[in-house]
Amino acid sequence: LNKPDYIRKDVNYEGCTDSFEDATTVLIGAGYDGTSTYRSGSRYAPRAIRKNTILSQEDYSPYLKKDLKDQAIHDFGNIQIPHGNREEVLKRIEQVSEYVVRHNKKPFFIGGEHLITLPAIKPLIQKYPDLHVIQLDAHLDLMDVLFGERFSHGTVMRRIYELLEEPKRIFQVGIRSGNQEEFIFSESNTKVFLFNTESFIPQIKLLEGKTVYLTVDLDVFDPSLIPGTGTPEAGGIFFPEFINLLKHIKHLNIVGADLVELSPPIDPTNISTIIASQILRELLLIL
Amino acid sequence: LNKPDYIRKDVNYEGCTDSFEDATTVLIGAGYDGTSTYRSGSRYAPRAIRKNTILSQEDYSPYLKKDLKDQAIHDFGNIQIPHGNREEVLKRIEQVSEYVVRHNKKPFFIGGEHLITLPAIKPLIQKYPDLHVIQLDAHLDLMDVLFGERFSHGTVMRRIYELLEEPKRIFQVGIRSGNQEEFIFSESNTKVFLFNTESFIPQIKLLEGKTVYLTVDLDVFDPSLIPGTGTPEAGGIFFPEFINLLKHIKHLNIVGADLVELSPPIDPTNISTIIASQILRELLLIL
Amino acid sequence: LNKPDYIRKDVNYEGCTDSFEDATTVLIGAGYDGTSTYRSGSRYAPRAIRKNTILSQEDYSPYLKKDLKDQAIHDFGNIQIPHGNREEVLKRIEQVSEYVVRHNKKPFFIGGEHLITLPAIKPLIQKYPDLHVIQLDAHLDLMDVLFGERFSHGTVMRRIYELLEEPKRIFQVGIRSGNQEEFIFSESNTKVFLFNTESFIPQIKLLEGKTVYLTVDLDVFDPSLIPGTGTPEAGGIFFPEFINLLKHIKHLNIVGADLVELSPPIDPTNISTIIASQILRELLLIL
Amino acid sequence: LNKPDYIRKDVNYEGCTDSFEDATTVLIGAGYDGTSTYRSGSRYAPRAIRKNTILSQEDYSPYLKKDLKDQAIHDFGNIQIPHGNREEVLKRIEQVSEYVVRHNKKPFFIGGEHLITLPAIKPLIQKYPDLHVIQLDAHLDLMDVLFGERFSHGTVMRRIYELLEEPKRIFQVGIRSGNQEEFIFSESNTKVFLFNTESFIPQIKLLEGKTVYLTVDLDVFDPSLIPGTGTPEAGGIFFPEFINLLKHIKHLNIVGADLVELSPPIDPTNISTIIASQILRELLLIL
Amino acid sequence: LNKPDYIRKDVNYEGCTDSFEDATTVLIGAGYDGTSTYRSGSRYAPRAIRKNTILSQEDYSPYLKKDLKDQAIHDFGNIQIPHGNREEVLKRIEQVSEYVVRHNKKPFFIGGEHLITLPAIKPLIQKYPDLHVIQLDAHLDLMDVLFGERFSHGTVMRRIYELLEEPKRIFQVGIRSGNQEEFIFSESNTKVFLFNTESFIPQIKLLEGKTVYLTVDLDVFDPSLIPGTGTPEAGGIFFPEFINLLKHIKHLNIVGADLVELSPPIDPTNISTIIASQILRELLLIL
Amino acid sequence: LNKPDYIRKDVNYEGCTDSFEDATTVLIGAGYDGTSTYRSGSRYAPRAIRKNTILSQEDYSPYLKKDLKDQAIHDFGNIQIPHGNREEVLKRIEQVSEYVVRHNKKPFFIGGEHLITLPAIKPLIQKYPDLHVIQLDAHLDLMDVLFGERFSHGTVMRRIYELLEEPKRIFQVGIRSGNQEEFIFSESNTKVFLFNTESFIPQIKLLEGKTVYLTVDLDVFDPSLIPGTGTPEAGGIFFPEFINLLKHIKHLNIVGADLVELSPPIDPTNISTIIASQILRELLLIL
Repeated sequence: LNKPDYIRKDVNYEGCTDSFEDATTVLIGAGYDGTSTYRSGSRYAPRAIRKNTILSQEDYSPYLKKDLKDQAIHDFGNIQIPHGNREEVLKRIEQVSEYVVRHNKKPFFIGGEHLITLPAIKPLIQKYPDLHVIQLDAHLDLMDVLFGERFSHGTVMRRIYELLEEPKRIFQVGIRSGNQEEFIFSESNTKVFLFNTESFIPQIKLLEGKTVYLTVDLDVFDPSLIPGTGTPEAGGIFFPEFINLLKHIKHLNIVGADLVELSPPIDPTNISTIIASQILRELLLIL
Repeated sequence: LNKPDYIRKDVNYEGCTDSFEDATTVLIGAGYDGTSTYRSGSRYAPRAIRKNTILSQEDYSPYLKKDLKDQAIHDFGNIQIPHGNREEVLKRIEQVSEYVVRHNKKPFFIGGEHLITLPAIKPLIQKYPDLHVIQLDAHLDLMDVLFGERFSHGTVMRRIYELLEEPKRIFQVGIRSGNQEEFIFSESNTKVFLFNTESFIPQIKLLEGKTVYLTVDLDVFDPSLIPGTGTPEAGGIFFPEFINLLKHIKHLNIVGADLVELSPPIDPTNISTIIASQILRELLLIL
Repeated sequence: LNKPDYIRKDVNYEGCTDSFEDATTVLIGAGYDGTSTYRSGSRYAPRAIRKNTILSQEDYSPYLKKDLKDQAIHDFGNIQIPHGNREEVLKRIEQVSEYVVRHNKKPFFIGGEHLITLPAIKPLIQKYPDLHVIQLDAHLDLMDVLFGERFSHGTVMRRIYELLEEPKRIFQVGIRSGNQEEFIFSESNTKVFLFNTESFIPQIKLLEGKTVYLTVDLDVFDPSLIPGTGTPEAGGIFFPEFINLLKHIKHLNIVGADLVELSPPIDPTNISTIIASQILRELLLIL
Repeated sequence: LNKPDYIRKDVNYEGCTDSFEDATTVLIGAGYDGTSTYRSGSRYAPRAIRKNTILSQEDYSPYLKKDLKDQAIHDFGNIQIPHGNREEVLKRIEQVSEYVVRHNKKPFFIGGEHLITLPAIKPLIQKYPDLHVIQLDAHLDLMDVLFGERFSHGTVMRRIYELLEEPKRIFQVGIRSGNQEEFIFSESNTKVFLFNTESFIPQIKLLEGKTVYLTVDLDVFDPSLIPGTGTPEAGGIFFPEFINLLKHIKHLNIVGADLVELSPPIDPTNISTIIASQILRELLLIL
Repeated sequence: LNKPDYIRKDVNYEGCTDSFEDATTVLIGAGYDGTSTYRSGSRYAPRAIRKNTILSQEDYSPYLKKDLKDQAIHDFGNIQIPHGNREEVLKRIEQVSEYVVRHNKKPFFIGGEHLITLPAIKPLIQKYPDLHVIQLDAHLDLMDVLFGERFSHGTVMRRIYELLEEPKRIFQVGIRSGNQEEFIFSESNTKVFLFNTESFIPQIKLLEGKTVYLTVDLDVFDPSLIPGTGTPEAGGIFFPEFINLLKHIKHLNIVGADLVELSPPIDPTNISTIIASQILRELLLIL
Repeated sequence: LNKPDYIRKDVNYEGCTDSFEDATTVLIGAGYDGTSTYRSGSRYAPRAIRKNTILSQEDYSPYLKKDLKDQAIHDFGNIQIPHGNREEVLKRIEQVSEYVVRHNKKPFFIGGEHLITLPAIKPLIQKYPDLHVIQLDAHLDLMDVLFGERFSHGTVMRRIYELLEEPKRIFQVGIRSGNQEEFIFSESNTKVFLFNTESFIPQIKLLEGKTVYLTVDLDVFDPSLIPGTGTPEAGGIFFPEFINLLKHIKHLNIVGADLVELSPPIDPTNISTIIASQILRELLLIL
């Protein structure tokens, strides 16, 4: 299995300085936003997040009392995206994820839009038959078809559901938007924890002993905190609630993760990117 | 009573697809911002809110577990505003409100600045002698005169107070700004619930059995959530508190309402408009 | 001691209309941002804050039930900043602070970046040997050297620490960023209250009977509220928590204060400036 | 004739430091934008223009080789605008213009929208029966009624035409927009010079020996230069053409002038305000 | 041939009020931006352009002395774009173009990115074997492959070249960017007129008697005029040069056209959209 | 002479891929903006310009018919700037310039503000006793002292004048701003070519046979083209005039150069950076 030739090194995420060989976690940019229906721009997220870490962000987290420099993380760079060619994009992300997984490392993808989770998770579903998913998100993303398309940011969790061996393996946390059909579908097929993390925390114990994939759609956060996202929904969580959640899930066996739907150009204050970058630091510290 | 000829159909607020005849609630845009003293732009709110619903907003609310498509709401369009002619603007809004009220429907106005509440409420005061007002607002708006003007966004509640038959009928909720004279005036003439909705909720029972007009000035929300408003004040409420309030007032006999003071051009992230549009959906679902 | 000739009168902060002679508190703009490493622009803060008060801000606070017009505050204007000449800038700020202190008045500086606190506090340290410091801030600012510089926004509290007669006199409140060395240094040399004001409030009693300098770095607030600041950190406090804190410290003997790190051009909605201006009103009302 | 009590001093336009008594030209801000139909915001122009002169603009013009400090100009401040009350606004502007004209000084108004030219010019029409008008503008502004209103930024030149004693006294220069009715009206009633100043320059001689009022609507300039204006039209003039025009008209007997339709908030780069401020300097230097 | 069911009516471009049956020209929005490599956002152009015409744009052009209301133009609305599915997008655009062409009407497409020209022109190439192309553009767009893709905004003219029966039928006007390979390719296969329209105008006679397709990439204009475009290049043409060109080509037999690469969200002043809308008016008036 | 240890590699300017050893020209970022009095932000220019070249800019110029890949240019990276310490900043720039000059290569600095030209040019003045300077600029920059400072963006050409062996060696081209004292000083000490390049072109022959330093302050361009600069002045040159000038000076013996005063954050459309980057390509191609 050769290293894919469409990986391009970017400036390095501060503190993630291990070699591929030494690393247990591999950071990969996947800036695809081709199916965004409302506000695109997540293609720029990987570069924007990395650039932000250079001058302003400490490697040390006083929340988790850990330092990125003490973790074994390699920053792989970005997958070159052939914009307009969704099939090729999905294939590349899957190949990169497979490459990382075969080397027994955990892939961490920076989106791009939520559709990238589908190819990112595929090699992990193949490797871990018991894989469960924690999805932090404002939206169910359970539509079968959106504007005629089966592969879209609004259908991604439906497609992942179809790949998992049994229902009720996707834990959808912070949900506050969806149409009636999606909510009906979710009743028998996923686990939904509405509005925030409160009702989810007592259920985390169900995930102990399982392998877990964690996908964080930034629109789970309140739009006042992350205005720079494609489909904002009123009423999301704030940073302290997120930190509290991390403390509850950090002992789980998380084998892969992603952070999606940051759209830097929407937010001229750059706060969305800065917060996303700090969220990423905390996520990397629990893997 | 003929339908006013200065109504112009806009793109339709998603989910509000009933005919005027079938509807119990009628949505009307009143984009007047002529007396704004600090930051104008609320004239653009009706179009911006409607446009936002087309691609990004679900008709279904998981908060109230209701769907706009199951409500009987007609979107009337916008009142053409002869900018610069305040008297004509106020007359038109009053005529449209009267037209809707005479057809035994509930008017719901999208402002525009807060002054539009004055003509909007007049036909309801005439029809319902027991009318009470719930005002969600950061400001008292009880000045007698502002910069020499008696008809202004800063005097509107004083003018409405003068039209009501007795004092203490205006419930001012979330107030956190006013000059000393306004606060003194409010002591004997209105009911003020400072800072948030906490002290108001136990008093909602006083409104049971009354007809109620609900006016929502978006600056009652925290400026981090709605930066796009004319006169922001630190320390407002957030979305969950608003939803909680709706659950407490939804059984009241609300006969008319408005949502005012969104100024879309102030907020380049468009979050203010998106949140306002979702607030409007929840308000329409409790009428 | 002559009045420095590099003071320039600006538009007046509304409500601060006393003469220098009559005033007990003197407001001074110190718009220096020369050592900002990440996002500069705090040089524009004094003018932006004052201008904001003219049309939109009431002099009366319903939180503290006090009116600026009833306080004895003089607005001195701004120190002319010779950009590029850090030594001269620091000298001027120190001279102005000394001028105010010698007249037995309390200086209140509007920054500018956090480095301005160093010259602002010096005359007070000389006058009050028991001086303690309350620092509301996201960052420890305890580095010895930042990018080779000993005098910088990231080293300012270390320099102030060196001027104070004994350790543990700086109360660092709301801290959520720093490198490991700074946290280790703080353990024996300052008092750190992480993340918010909760753990600090029970310790306020330690400051009773002391003279206190209060420095407020606006990045202690959540970035959703104050995006317009140089080095934003996720997870800060909101306005109600700040008001609550003020109620707990207003009886202390605060002999000087500052408000730093507002960068108006970063926030196109102007909300950061509006909030900062209201924060300043509350701070002036407790002095 | 008393000095009107609704004048408020602003920061001073740099270089315009003469007293009212000593001045031959008086600068007045008239920030009214109440009839703007498309993009409002010109209310902020007087303050924005003055503030811009403080740090960045030289008093000396290398184009005209003259210095503002050598002119006799008084900066009067701004007329307080009772937003929403068009009649009162127009009355105040007319009173101020009359006050200045009676003292045998030349009024120079900074708008505000173009409607302010109507009250500004009235006292001059009364004083000078031979008054002619040079209008630099993209639009004819000759509609009789716009959205039902006779007093509007789109009808202002029609109203002024009605006040002048005979037709063909308005020289409309740089015109590139209007409806067919306006163009037909202009054929017998005004003089139109399409697109730029080229065809006008040979006709300037017709204005020699007359008294002249000069009104400059900033949309005569190319929108790339002044994006911050209410109703931009492609294809306007650039700065060198404007300077060239000034050299051709500076010997005329200009007895009053205005500069209108700058809307600062539309242009986040602030270039529109900076250019407008420099245009104003050149205009003041030829009066 | 049925009318495609994926056409959605938008607000109407002002003045284009004829029915499909009566029209000779049909306006169609094709907001696809899936292959944009640098700055996307052209998906929003059709709606932004139409909305702009409602309040601010006259139907009458003083340049061409014609009125849109006197032309026979139908505004068809927008093609619904299944974002992420390039093949389906291209198929739909081609079907709509074919539908219009079969009804013996001229299609006028508003992009979207430049790739939309390929499906738009296909039915015209089939119908008119002598079809020539005028391309106003800063870029050659003659790459064979861009980032691995044969169907892209950077390869579109190469694909069209391959469809035309003989070389030298594409007149590339205003070109100022391309790599060396593209310039070498153009030497024997297209006609290139560098930098502006000057060298092209004498060659227009070569197009007389031919059928012509006109594609206008807005980046042919100077970036100061149209900053809101995907790939700006210094040194473009201004509006008067464009008008002059139109006067030289208006007698040609233009059988189809498009206007592409406006990206409204990039330009917060909205000037790019306003200018594009006025360019579109002039283009519609010469068809 | 060791390579300075405060150089940090950035992303590479596209096409400048030679090693230091092989290169004849060396590109260096010097992002210092500490003395900016009006609008800072030029510190971000080096990174912004380089980043812009990655996806959007061709290496080939159709104007000069040359390709960057065929030039021998090394991109050195950026000088780390100790913000706040002007002396150290100037020392570092001078050291880097000396390092490059001693290796018989031409330094090309990307500012930063105009003050960086002073240390950049010093080693060249020492090496070439006949050094002349071409300064493209809107401002004379000949003040002796600005706000009390002798070393400032407004005094830089006065300081350089003092280092040159005789007067009249600085050719100031495109000048359109300065105070009267500066213009008087320039009469006997420099050569001033007002407003544009027209009067300069016939005098270029005076520079033949001399060594020349070329400093380009981006405010020489029209503010509509480069709004993102610190001190914009109406009436600058456009890109074709600049290209024409380059064709006239490309045969001169230019031994060093710089491009200063781009402030990326001021221009949200990013056009200023894109144009600056293309200007830089053309400048590199004539060295």
